[in-house]
Amino acid sequence: MPLGDNLGDKSDSRYCGVETEFNDDMPHVLSCNVNGGFDFVVAPLGFSKLKMFAFTKFDKTGCLLIHYLDVEKLQAAEHMEPGYRPSLIDKASRDSTVLPFAGSDLVLSPSQWSSHVVGKISSWIDLDSEDDILRVDSEITLKQELAWASHLSLQACLLPTPKGTSCGNYARCVNQILQNLNNMQAVELTDSWELWNSFRVLCEHHSQLSIALDVLSSLPSANSIGRWFGEPVKAAIVHTDTFITNARGYPCLSKRHQNLLSRFFYYSIQIVLSGKPVHKLSGGNSAAGADHSDNYAQQAQRHPLRSYLDYVGYLYQKMEPLPEQERFELGYRDFLQSPLQPLMDNLEAQTYETFEKDSVKYIQYQRAVSKALVDRISDENASTTTVVLMVVGAGRGPLVRASLQAAEETGRKLKVYAVEKNPNAVVTLHSLVKLEGWENVVTIISSDMRCWDAPEKADILVSELLGSFGDNELSPECLDGAERFLKPDGISIPSSYTSFIQPVTTSKLYNDVKLHKDLLHFETAYVVKLHRLARLSPSQSVFTFTHPNYSPNRSNQRYKKLRFEMPNDTGSTIVHGFAGYFDAILYKDVHLGIEPSTATPNMFSWFPIFFPLRSPVYVKAGSPLEFHIWRCCGNTKVWYEWCVTSPTSSPIHNSNGRSYWVGL
Amino acid sequence: MPLGDNLGDKSDSRYCGVETEFNDDMPHVLSCNVNGGFDFVVAPLGFSKLKMFAFTKFDKTGCLLIHYLDVEKLQAAEHMEPGYRPSLIDKASRDSTVLPFAGSDLVLSPSQWSSHVVGKISSWIDLDSEDDILRVDSEITLKQELAWASHLSLQACLLPTPKGTSCGNYARCVNQILQNLNNMQAVELTDSWELWNSFRVLCEHHSQLSIALDVLSSLPSANSIGRWFGEPVKAAIVHTDTFITNARGYPCLSKRHQNLLSRFFYYSIQIVLSGKPVHKLSGGNSAAGADHSDNYAQQAQRHPLRSYLDYVGYLYQKMEPLPEQERFELGYRDFLQSPLQPLMDNLEAQTYETFEKDSVKYIQYQRAVSKALVDRISDENASTTTVVLMVVGAGRGPLVRASLQAAEETGRKLKVYAVEKNPNAVVTLHSLVKLEGWENVVTIISSDMRCWDAPEKADILVSELLGSFGDNELSPECLDGAERFLKPDGISIPSSYTSFIQPVTTSKLYNDVKLHKDLLHFETAYVVKLHRLARLSPSQSVFTFTHPNYSPNRSNQRYKKLRFEMPNDTGSTIVHGFAGYFDAILYKDVHLGIEPSTATPNMFSWFPIFFPLRSPVYVKAGSPLEFHIWRCCGNTKVWYEWCVTSPTSSPIHNSNGRSYWVGL
Repeated sequence: MPLGDNLGDKSDSRYCGVETEFNDDMPHVLSCNVNGGFDFVVAPLGFSKLKMFAFTKFDKTGCLLIHYLDVEKLQAAEHMEPGYRPSLIDKASRDSTVLPFAGSDLVLSPSQWSSHVVGKISSWIDLDSEDDILRVDSEITLKQELAWASHLSLQACLLPTPKGTSCGNYARCVNQILQNLNNMQAVELTDSWELWNSFRVLCEHHSQLSIALDVLSSLPSANSIGRWFGEPVKAAIVHTDTFITNARGYPCLSKRHQNLLSRFFYYSIQIVLSGKPVHKLSGGNSAAGADHSDNYAQQAQRHPLRSYLDYVGYLYQKMEPLPEQERFELGYRDFLQSPLQPLMDNLEAQTYETFEKDSVKYIQYQRAVSKALVDRISDENASTTTVVLMVVGAGRGPLVRASLQAAEETGRKLKVYAVEKNPNAVVTLHSLVKLEGWENVVTIISSDMRCWDAPEKADILVSELLGSFGDNELSPECLDGAERFLKPDGISIPSSYTSFIQPVTTSKLYNDVKLHKDLLHFETAYVVKLHRLARLSPSQSVFTFTHPNYSPNRSNQRYKKLRFEMPNDTGSTIVHGFAGYFDAILYKDVHLGIEPSTATPNMFSWFPIFFPLRSPVYVKAGSPLEFHIWRCCGNTKVWYEWCVTSPTSSPIHNSNGRSYWVGL
Repeated sequence: MPLGDNLGDKSDSRYCGVETEFNDDMPHVLSCNVNGGFDFVVAPLGFSKLKMFAFTKFDKTGCLLIHYLDVEKLQAAEHMEPGYRPSLIDKASRDSTVLPFAGSDLVLSPSQWSSHVVGKISSWIDLDSEDDILRVDSEITLKQELAWASHLSLQACLLPTPKGTSCGNYARCVNQILQNLNNMQAVELTDSWELWNSFRVLCEHHSQLSIALDVLSSLPSANSIGRWFGEPVKAAIVHTDTFITNARGYPCLSKRHQNLLSRFFYYSIQIVLSGKPVHKLSGGNSAAGADHSDNYAQQAQRHPLRSYLDYVGYLYQKMEPLPEQERFELGYRDFLQSPLQPLMDNLEAQTYETFEKDSVKYIQYQRAVSKALVDRISDENASTTTVVLMVVGAGRGPLVRASLQAAEETGRKLKVYAVEKNPNAVVTLHSLVKLEGWENVVTIISSDMRCWDAPEKADILVSELLGSFGDNELSPECLDGAERFLKPDGISIPSSYTSFIQPVTTSKLYNDVKLHKDLLHFETAYVVKLHRLARLSPSQSVFTFTHPNYSPNRSNQRYKKLRFEMPNDTGSTIVHGFAGYFDAILYKDVHLGIEPSTATPNMFSWFPIFFPLRSPVYVKAGSPLEFHIWRCCGNTKVWYEWCVTSPTSSPIHNSNGRSYWVGL
């Protein structure tokens, strides 16, 4: 039974699990907990000796191998005495082998196993022990239990935290298994990011290796926790003794824990409750009894962790529902899109349709044009002077409309040229002008602004050629061409734009890029609605372009070296790439942008851009991260190159624009 | 004119170059130096302004671009005043461009340019300067000079050392050029390994990026220098003031410098002389004059660096010539071979032929069998007792012969079973037995030793199933099968074998593996005659197998974690992989092996094995290197997995033997 409703959330964080001890009677365990309100159990995988089950097999050299297996139930893995370790089993029959067992796979239906049970691997295993026998026993146990879990099609298994500071052999065994399993997620439980990082690197960032976080009473710093939201955290295990007690004796969580759980929900991380009830809520407890009007019989049948579950459900339901905009964009979360090629390709009607709906953007443009008109023409000249305004890249007309509304609002007279290179958009533009009766004001020019031979010069040049990273859709190159027909004292709207960048952890995006198994995709910048990520350091400005620019030495090539310092309490981190944004000054104090700290609210035309790294860069706590980015211009294309030089050097990405470029 | 003859050496280190200053008259410069005994010159690339050369070109948007270029010779790049930097050229014609120029490409023939001239890039450039204008000028200059060098098909260019500690932008520009050039090697000159390492990583370990080392009077420690022999060092620039003066007033080098030059020659690194003569050897110098019987006229025409060149030639010629064995193996140096699959594939006659020539190996086996026979049978029983000796994996018979010779030498009576699975080798074995008249002593068994049903048990089991890494050709698995027919007190020859491993720097092998552009080749162990490499730490033992092994829990699976500490004075290093060896104890004190510190001399049956790393691991000075290796056994194959966990974690290589395995 999910935690409840929360508008817009259809993610897995609705489901809450509970950690259980070993019990022979799996159907009973499951029904108790499901009836008690939990959606799944995290249960130890039982262990047994199978008897008299034998099979024979010829190997290719013709020798006969016979395995004798015994059937005889043993104690739960959790309670296994050394006597039950594989190496210590009765040596009388040397070929006997212990197999994992949980009664039988028939005690639950396949769908019950796969949707309600998460396997828990024996916690005594230590695959990096200096004791060879313990190490080998641990390997055998891990493989057997995971094989059994796989046979049951469990959706996930919970592996114990590596015992020491070394995890080489543990990682190798898990990695061997990961290479073969396609239908199960192995969940790694650890409280140390460093150990996790080492483990996952050894396993080549395998996409089926995930994390379960233990949530204890004392929490690390916000920055330290923040790192985890870029990692593949699937579950958070909240122990009952993490709960505090409210005035009525009920379990509840501290404010910091509440906020943490909200973030878990937001990032689709499932909660698992663990431990014994530590809040005594017997029927005799007057406050509780009174509040819930439970009679004694009901109370007795209640799941012992029900009050904890109820509280988690309460937190889930009281979360702020997602705003409409966010709900609309749910499907885009962490989905990599290749940036547009607006110069080389003509946009489709659907694309215009989407962007034109972004009213916030056009309101900002209208405000900017209004201010520019008032600055340019005094009130006394308003009725006698006509301002020549050119919209370059007019599309289907939204900036023409915004400009005309600005003129109306300020009482200025306007002559508008609408320059558009896409002949399909020009068709729509003509019918708009006719429909609106703008024929006397608006002249439509079907031409590339870089080549148009203008009949007169403009007072105001209005354009919106910005990409997620500002200049990445070649606004600088287009406006270089258009400034030919701007008056020497003319105004460009926007008057400048700046790109911003910050390092991020994002396992999800890294794995999605890696899926392509080629260099090209690691050297491409993507447009993406970032969601599951950790922003490791505040963004810094990269390239600025100012318009008009009459400098004789102007160049659109750029180079920037940035040095990011992570906050001291973050700890070590891994950088999968860089998130990019822009901020544009349209006119004076009117700006528009997506840089997180100054983003224009409720604007949806731009998702951030993401520059990946071919190999994630490990940054030790306290080390600075040095990033270089170049904007390079050729005769037919513009491209970025980027690299990291500290703490270690990466290859230079996208040399000569070999993988990713924007055509001129 | 090469430095002289040295038996067996046909490498580029025979050629010696000289660094020259800029001079307009390139033909004169070249003839002077070639007549003076040098093979090539390292010359600055001159600079000029080309005049009145114009070209026009339409870009795709239909705009017209015109470049005006001026022709007017400027001073040499080496002497360029800031006034001649690209940014400071007369701005009257804004579109003018400076092009590199050296008189004309016609002053030398194409083959002279390509075989006798190495270009030297202007040393003032600083591509990572904080001064934007200097930086941009430097970029333009570098590109122009390299383009000019490429136009001339120069074999190499010498780039100045990066100015500061940062080289991001310098590396990007060089990398852009490297991606495009196919006919030129860019030589990077640096005295700092760290800076070189950063540079090359940024350039993705490009195979055309090489190093020229400056050799100065004071040399770093031997370990520090040793690192460079695993790097792509193409030339060593020896400055005249590095030379000391001998009793007769002639230039010579210190003992350490002499040894260093010998190593350069051995590793095919070319010497370039640089600087002005600092040893005054006028005709008046009596000792020199008397010694060389030069008359004054000859003396006057001698190249000013001739006495330095003669000394380098003298060092070259007095090098120990390569031993015959080494000369025979020249063609195998650093050539990657896939290891044999001796169980799955039958060896070819040619392979048997080669291995049978290794007399040293068979002498060791004969010594081992002799000792075992004497231990087993006392002198008094020698004539009455027949020893049953089985050669398992008899091939075409060399171990049968060695065993029979041991019997003759010790006066023991032998009954030999020669077991061989390759039916083709068995044919040869039959004719050998007939030819040698061994019919009464030797019984040939055409069978796989793992399945053979022996009619009696053996006193001595002789085998040679060893690979470069000891167990890698599955000797353990084969002998497990053969030990069934060894008497309980029987002797196995070999009685044990151990593998060894050590971390190495080897750019050459790394690049050869990388050339395949796939995972498979990075997860394969290769047999290779190692040459251009730096051994970073003494080798350590890995896996040991002992025969016979009657332990009830015996397993051929193995796991070893090794920790390598680099010597303190080495500095930081890069690890491209691990070199593997073996040592086998045949019987008591008779051993056989290729581990460098204990290798059996003049034995050529085994080259080392090389385990590559997918990404080279940077090890900071003083950091330990932690390596893990597993020997894994399945039903049909045996394989290794390996990884590094410190200073950083690598992926686990060859998980499940997905890339490389040996079939059972």
